Amino acid sequence: MIKPRTPPGVLELLPGEQIAFQRMLDVIRRNYERFGFLPVETPVFELTELLLTKSGGETERQVYFAQSTGALEKREEGLPELALRFDLTVPLARYVAEHEHELAFPFRRYQMQRVYRGERQQRGRFREFYQCDIDVIGKDALSVRFDAEMPAVIHAVFSELGIGKFTIRMNNRKLMRGFFERLGIAEGSRQTAVLREVDKLDKRGPDQVRETLTGEDFGLSSEAVARILEFVSVRSNGHADALAKLDALGGGNATLEQGVAELREVLGLVKALGLPESDYALNFSIARGLDYYTGTVYETTLDEHPQIGSICSGGRYDDLASHYTRSRLPGVGISIGLTRLFWQLREAGLVAGAESHVACLVALMDEAALDDALALGSRLRAGGLNTEVQLEPKKLAKQLQYADRAGIRFVLLRGEEERARGAVAVKDLRRNEQFELPEAELVAALKVELAQPRALAGR
Amino acid sequence: MIKPRTPPGVLELLPGEQIAFQRMLDVIRRNYERFGFLPVETPVFELTELLLTKSGGETERQVYFAQSTGALEKREEGLPELALRFDLTVPLARYVAEHEHELAFPFRRYQMQRVYRGERQQRGRFREFYQCDIDVIGKDALSVRFDAEMPAVIHAVFSELGIGKFTIRMNNRKLMRGFFERLGIAEGSRQTAVLREVDKLDKRGPDQVRETLTGEDFGLSSEAVARILEFVSVRSNGHADALAKLDALGGGNATLEQGVAELREVLGLVKALGLPESDYALNFSIARGLDYYTGTVYETTLDEHPQIGSICSGGRYDDLASHYTRSRLPGVGISIGLTRLFWQLREAGLVAGAESHVACLVALMDEAALDDALALGSRLRAGGLNTEVQLEPKKLAKQLQYADRAGIRFVLLRGEEERARGAVAVKDLRRNEQFELPEAELVAALKVELAQPRALAGR
Repeated sequence: MIKPRTPPGVLELLPGEQIAFQRMLDVIRRNYERFGFLPVETPVFELTELLLTKSGGETERQVYFAQSTGALEKREEGLPELALRFDLTVPLARYVAEHEHELAFPFRRYQMQRVYRGERQQRGRFREFYQCDIDVIGKDALSVRFDAEMPAVIHAVFSELGIGKFTIRMNNRKLMRGFFERLGIAEGSRQTAVLREVDKLDKRGPDQVRETLTGEDFGLSSEAVARILEFVSVRSNGHADALAKLDALGGGNATLEQGVAELREVLGLVKALGLPESDYALNFSIARGLDYYTGTVYETTLDEHPQIGSICSGGRYDDLASHYTRSRLPGVGISIGLTRLFWQLREAGLVAGAESHVACLVALMDEAALDDALALGSRLRAGGLNTEVQLEPKKLAKQLQYADRAGIRFVLLRGEEERARGAVAVKDLRRNEQFELPEAELVAALKVELAQPRALAGR
Repeated sequence: MIKPRTPPGVLELLPGEQIAFQRMLDVIRRNYERFGFLPVETPVFELTELLLTKSGGETERQVYFAQSTGALEKREEGLPELALRFDLTVPLARYVAEHEHELAFPFRRYQMQRVYRGERQQRGRFREFYQCDIDVIGKDALSVRFDAEMPAVIHAVFSELGIGKFTIRMNNRKLMRGFFERLGIAEGSRQTAVLREVDKLDKRGPDQVRETLTGEDFGLSSEAVARILEFVSVRSNGHADALAKLDALGGGNATLEQGVAELREVLGLVKALGLPESDYALNFSIARGLDYYTGTVYETTLDEHPQIGSICSGGRYDDLASHYTRSRLPGVGISIGLTRLFWQLREAGLVAGAESHVACLVALMDEAALDDALALGSRLRAGGLNTEVQLEPKKLAKQLQYADRAGIRFVLLRGEEERARGAVAVKDLRRNEQFELPEAELVAALKVELAQPRALAGR
């Protein structure tokens, strides 16, 4: 006898939680599809030589390799042939380069799969987690207009998820680069290093960042640091203010001017797409760590749960797949780390007690009614209602208790009297009401009830 | 520069195919949920000591192990700590045993995830493939009534998939066991060996099977083999004939009688569930190879594509998780190997040219109309229509060509005249028609068109 348990570092859910998780996956997918993104799924493993082309040291340390028994027995030197994906970006690069001549560009793709990282064991860190990504990939060029669709998708997803007021924060890496150039901080690795420090502002606070930047390693003047900290503290409040904040930056620097022009165009289109101006803002501190991003960058935060950090991030990049193809493939994309988000929402008590996707339980009180219960169940299902039929008679109280615990809203009962009347008795556990419906109206009536909007959490 | 390519033995799809695949996954899931099954997802890897408890030699040879870089460097003797699941049954056993006290029994679960096997490289054999499983697990006991729901689920799934007429073939292992007992073939490994031979009837033909069974290894009399071959050739045709075929078996043997009683009950309930009698049949040859099954067994075949073999199989088993818990957990379940099925349907030309989930393309002919196109796109999406907006002006012919290739049905156009009239011009590429709609009626009218049933294949 072996004690059953999951490996450390994975989030395995009980069915009630899995229903809530699945509902979030569905909302994300539905909205990705709403904007015309096409599905892609890639294998969980890639050839190691392809997967590790792009990655730096830290990522490589976290990679899981896969070996069959045969390969394992050979105990060859060097890395195994297969490695598990650690994100969805490298597989996308490989996919687009491999199928370059079979795809239509700009190529809009969504991908929602699990990725694997050998993370240190720690609460809230997962070794297997879902990423839900969209990207638009252009060939040779990609208009900045595509950058404006990303906030619209984010807005659609988080509005429907209903997990509270959120703000989409935008910036543009060219703004920062141009600003740094103006301060005489040279392009390239020096800028990247400064950016990386600035990105730690939230965690370390301004004093520590100021100390590091004026210290030996960076050697910036106090005045330059003050101007940087002033720059990154800029936040807009409403659409007109966002445009004003861009105006206030001034010009005289080509990189900065291009960044301003891009953000201006993005803001204009975001408005045309109908986003309420309370839901997006400029935030000049957003750098998104990676050197990868070159233009627009995004973060999304829950206004009432800032401690959760960004729940959807991304940005514009210059070239997706330079390791696999000579074609230039610029793109823009965003990613939702759903496993971590779900875990955090659960920690905050925001996903408990969701109603089941099973709408109806056909109760069974005596043996003789089984065929009738089965036929009733089949009719409900044919009408599109998810229905469980009680197959063995039990006391009604037990059946009601089961439905209540399982989050099944309607319990349907039919004794001889109801049958004689062509009717069905319905207990609505959400409203705590009981009523009778003619069988002919049953499906339509229950569907009307179920069509009422239902919150992610709570009944 | 590294040549981009997938590892051997995986099925990676282009977006158009992925849409068709996703549609099949959705149909399966929707019908599993329709019958009240609850979602479960388990991690891709399990602890090796748990995963390999149950498996025999052949499976173990095919297992993939996962190791992080750190674990790899240690080069320890013995098997790695983690192994990728090779089916969904062992993870289910672990899950149910681990969460035994948090689940309600009978526990109906569905699980649709990929599994991994280090198969020999061969056309149509996959190292990564989807399994779409349902199981009902009882505690201590599980009524045979649950066995009757399985054909109903299979029927619902394959009716909606629309891949042609199918037949659900049923048998009961007790029938065979009882019949063998009557012939004096002792229970246990001898019966299993005979069953295994009989299971090869389709591949080898009756002559070879007869030869083997009367040969040295088995030593059965010619008469016994003739009776076995007669027994396994029994097929029913319609409901009444199925019952007659059971009657004809006679009795005088407890195991056989129990098998007959179980099949009788299952047939009765399958009828009460409303399955047309042309879609199910008894077939006494079905043994489902494994020793695992103990009662009802199922196979499903496409009437017009018998070469594909069984597309959905399963059965009843006595105890799910004896390695992980002392509780007795009998169950019944079925599995659809969707990757292989999809591949076979594609080979047979049955999934080409599916229409996209993207219903509308808002065309753009001149710069000035961009904001209007974006606003129109947002209105279509808010109405529930998956919509792509052309963000850069192009010749109409190019935009129509793109929509046609992508399987997008409606192209929406709005010049100044249409705008002045509050109208939108619509090209329906499926019907090859063009018409104009008042903007206020646009969403509703397109939705009516889209609600017409759409075949899996073809436009």
